[in-house]
Amino acid sequence: MLDVRPILFIVGILLTTLSLAMVVPAVADAAVGHPDWQVFTAAAGLTLFTGVMLILTTRTSVRRMNLRQAFVLTAACWLVIPTFGALPFRFADLELSYTDAFFEAMSGITTTGSTVIAGLDFAPPGILLWRALLQWLGGVGIIVMAIMVMPMLRVGGMQLFRMESSEKTEKALPRTAQFAAWTGVIYLALTLLCTLLYHMAGMGGFDALAHAMTTLATGGFSTRDASVGHFDSAAVDAVAVAFMLAGSLPFVLYVRVVRGAPRSLLRDQQVRWFATIVATAVATMTAYLATQHDMAAPAALRLAAFNVISVMTGTGYATADFALWGGFAVIGLFVLMFVGGCAGSTTCGLKIFRLQVLYQAARVQLRRLLTPHGVFVPYYNGRPLGDDVLTSVMAFFFLFILCWAAIAVGLGLAGLDFITAASGAATAIANVGPGLGPVIGPHGTFAPLPDAAKWLMAAGMLLGRLELFTILVLLTPGFWRD
Amino acid sequence: MLDVRPILFIVGILLTTLSLAMVVPAVADAAVGHPDWQVFTAAAGLTLFTGVMLILTTRTSVRRMNLRQAFVLTAACWLVIPTFGALPFRFADLELSYTDAFFEAMSGITTTGSTVIAGLDFAPPGILLWRALLQWLGGVGIIVMAIMVMPMLRVGGMQLFRMESSEKTEKALPRTAQFAAWTGVIYLALTLLCTLLYHMAGMGGFDALAHAMTTLATGGFSTRDASVGHFDSAAVDAVAVAFMLAGSLPFVLYVRVVRGAPRSLLRDQQVRWFATIVATAVATMTAYLATQHDMAAPAALRLAAFNVISVMTGTGYATADFALWGGFAVIGLFVLMFVGGCAGSTTCGLKIFRLQVLYQAARVQLRRLLTPHGVFVPYYNGRPLGDDVLTSVMAFFFLFILCWAAIAVGLGLAGLDFITAASGAATAIANVGPGLGPVIGPHGTFAPLPDAAKWLMAAGMLLGRLELFTILVLLTPGFWRD
Repeated sequence: MLDVRPILFIVGILLTTLSLAMVVPAVADAAVGHPDWQVFTAAAGLTLFTGVMLILTTRTSVRRMNLRQAFVLTAACWLVIPTFGALPFRFADLELSYTDAFFEAMSGITTTGSTVIAGLDFAPPGILLWRALLQWLGGVGIIVMAIMVMPMLRVGGMQLFRMESSEKTEKALPRTAQFAAWTGVIYLALTLLCTLLYHMAGMGGFDALAHAMTTLATGGFSTRDASVGHFDSAAVDAVAVAFMLAGSLPFVLYVRVVRGAPRSLLRDQQVRWFATIVATAVATMTAYLATQHDMAAPAALRLAAFNVISVMTGTGYATADFALWGGFAVIGLFVLMFVGGCAGSTTCGLKIFRLQVLYQAARVQLRRLLTPHGVFVPYYNGRPLGDDVLTSVMAFFFLFILCWAAIAVGLGLAGLDFITAASGAATAIANVGPGLGPVIGPHGTFAPLPDAAKWLMAAGMLLGRLELFTILVLLTPGFWRD
Repeated sequence: MLDVRPILFIVGILLTTLSLAMVVPAVADAAVGHPDWQVFTAAAGLTLFTGVMLILTTRTSVRRMNLRQAFVLTAACWLVIPTFGALPFRFADLELSYTDAFFEAMSGITTTGSTVIAGLDFAPPGILLWRALLQWLGGVGIIVMAIMVMPMLRVGGMQLFRMESSEKTEKALPRTAQFAAWTGVIYLALTLLCTLLYHMAGMGGFDALAHAMTTLATGGFSTRDASVGHFDSAAVDAVAVAFMLAGSLPFVLYVRVVRGAPRSLLRDQQVRWFATIVATAVATMTAYLATQHDMAAPAALRLAAFNVISVMTGTGYATADFALWGGFAVIGLFVLMFVGGCAGSTTCGLKIFRLQVLYQAARVQLRRLLTPHGVFVPYYNGRPLGDDVLTSVMAFFFLFILCWAAIAVGLGLAGLDFITAASGAATAIANVGPGLGPVIGPHGTFAPLPDAAKWLMAAGMLLGRLELFTILVLLTPGFWRD
């Protein structure tokens, strides 16, 4: 039998924290005199009550957890937050169904950024802040998990990022915890810096803060229906581009930089690949817009850089309806949706290191064709890649495509057309935000979709955010057998 | 330096054979008094001349070939045939450009079935026969290659199908050659049987022969613009379904059955998986058509079985415009395009055995998550899978998706819209035939596409037909270095 008590205990702590977070939008709404402050207070109360009850009833059982418990705990945390985080959406002025509220909360905490809410420009500050907070917490949450939990769970090649020399020493946990703490500090500092820069670029204080929180989290919730396009400012676009990129880099490298190894970022192969892919994609799209849509080069570059980076990093802001840019742009952005950013960042998708490992594996295969008995070792960041990482990453790629196909077919069954289903499945599993096509494209919302599609996409967001394996392993019959 | 003489010698033999094949449509056109017989005769003469010249000038250099030569030879054969096979299309009454003629010939020899020709119902017999012949020869060609060449080249896990105990004995080549010869006999016998059954089902003799040749080859060229739907006969549909399935099974197993091991087919895991996937897909689509389109169950089953099997096996016949069946059907058929049939059949696509290997790899990964130090061995047909096969298949899957994405983006750049580009890339690389959407869907043709798109898709067909690696290895710089 799986001992669920330590799991419930930690979920209780998490809910207690979440209830404290709900106080922030309550205060904001109270400050402007909007009655939604009562909704946030009530939701906070209910969440706090549940959290404290869980802590009290399971208090005696904290101890070392085994692997199965760690998997269940991880999934439970990311399910419980949107379940309770949906309450303010459900009971606020918005008149959302619980399906819509859950979809919005899951889209928030997984830093996806797909929204069912229209009329953001006139929404009270509480709701806007709550959306930003969910993404901001989800962003830092996934970074901390990538440092402290994922390498232990060894999902999809994440064992590559186990801390060096941390396995056999007594100092392993304190060292990782220290890194996680540093990461939190840097995350906060970057958020404040981004807020300041947005403000200097012309945003109001509230807009600047809310956007900074969802930019660094590569989340993409905006305070405006027209997303960042609303501000129509090159300076705002530039700040957004800079911090979407900042959110896509491995945060452990920032810690190294801060602690006196400033070259860590530049020397990292994952960062270099990421920069190369971004530069290539932006240059190609700029050339396409300039030649095919007769734009001036600076305007084309601004549009291309913003929207390509927004889609590829899975942020999901938009400054234009790129669904109207023609076949090349649409299929190109569809493919970029799957790419994502670096491991250990706030981005989702396949992630750059996996593409590097897959590229290495393919290269080795091609060489082996000509020299069947030759020994070719794939490398990553200067060290040889073990077979376990290789097969783990390759299996991840297969399952990613398989899950995409399953969700897309499911969305088709729910009545969605080809481009909505295909891009909807991709945007969910890769935590991007908008889809393609007239319904869920950057100028649409997910509100018109049937409930079945919303639940399926919410499941896809969770699946993608937790690197597939963490969820899929719970669905294997062997997991629950003793 | 790569010694190209033995390669040119074999290409010469191939062209000589191809010129003989061109005599068949010449005779057919002469019989009905159509002037195209001159075109076929001239093309045959030119092809024969080229072939004989190659043979004469390289005659002295036949000997054992090395691996690099084998790769170049394979690619050369599949490039030279459409190059010369296009001549009749170019100079016949059809007024095709060479681009269109090459596209049609490549689509034929790779058993894809995408066509640029409209007005088939009124075309002279020579052209129709030539299209059927190209697919028929391409079908048997790929089976023989799967037995004799691919396992040696070890591309994408094909080493799994090296003949047992054939490596170290003197009898290796004779034994494989014997199997290949048997395969040819069975292929011919099945074609004749299929012709007979089509004829009994109501087709005219010529239609029956031409369709039998492209059914067994899972090619999909028809003698009618409305494809098999033209005949509107349940009996014809049933014959087509039976022989599309027959063409999708491993032909070596037929040899085993004929030579006294009748259970070989039923015991084979690849065949079982194939049957399961086909049955599931047909049942699901039948249920969808019956419930969502208010069809009677038998009508839904007939439509679903024919079109699902046609797309999945990469045949490409149609009895309905499935592009109009709604989101689920379109996205479902899009995904099925990638599946294909069994290795050692005339089908293309990922192929069932690779899905089995990928499934096993994913299963092992999920188990390893819970027991990190456990030893889990993936199996295929009762034997453990070596790491080389595993990584080879996984790299194949990655490159298949990558090539799809590259072709799709390229098609977008050539001006195609999302669904045309996405399905066009899939139908080319998986050798299916029709695409999805209004332009290249089952009721359209590929004629309206720009030339760049046609060349790109022809390249995709070749890439898919030769299991990617055979072409990709030629593009690596190491290949041409000494």
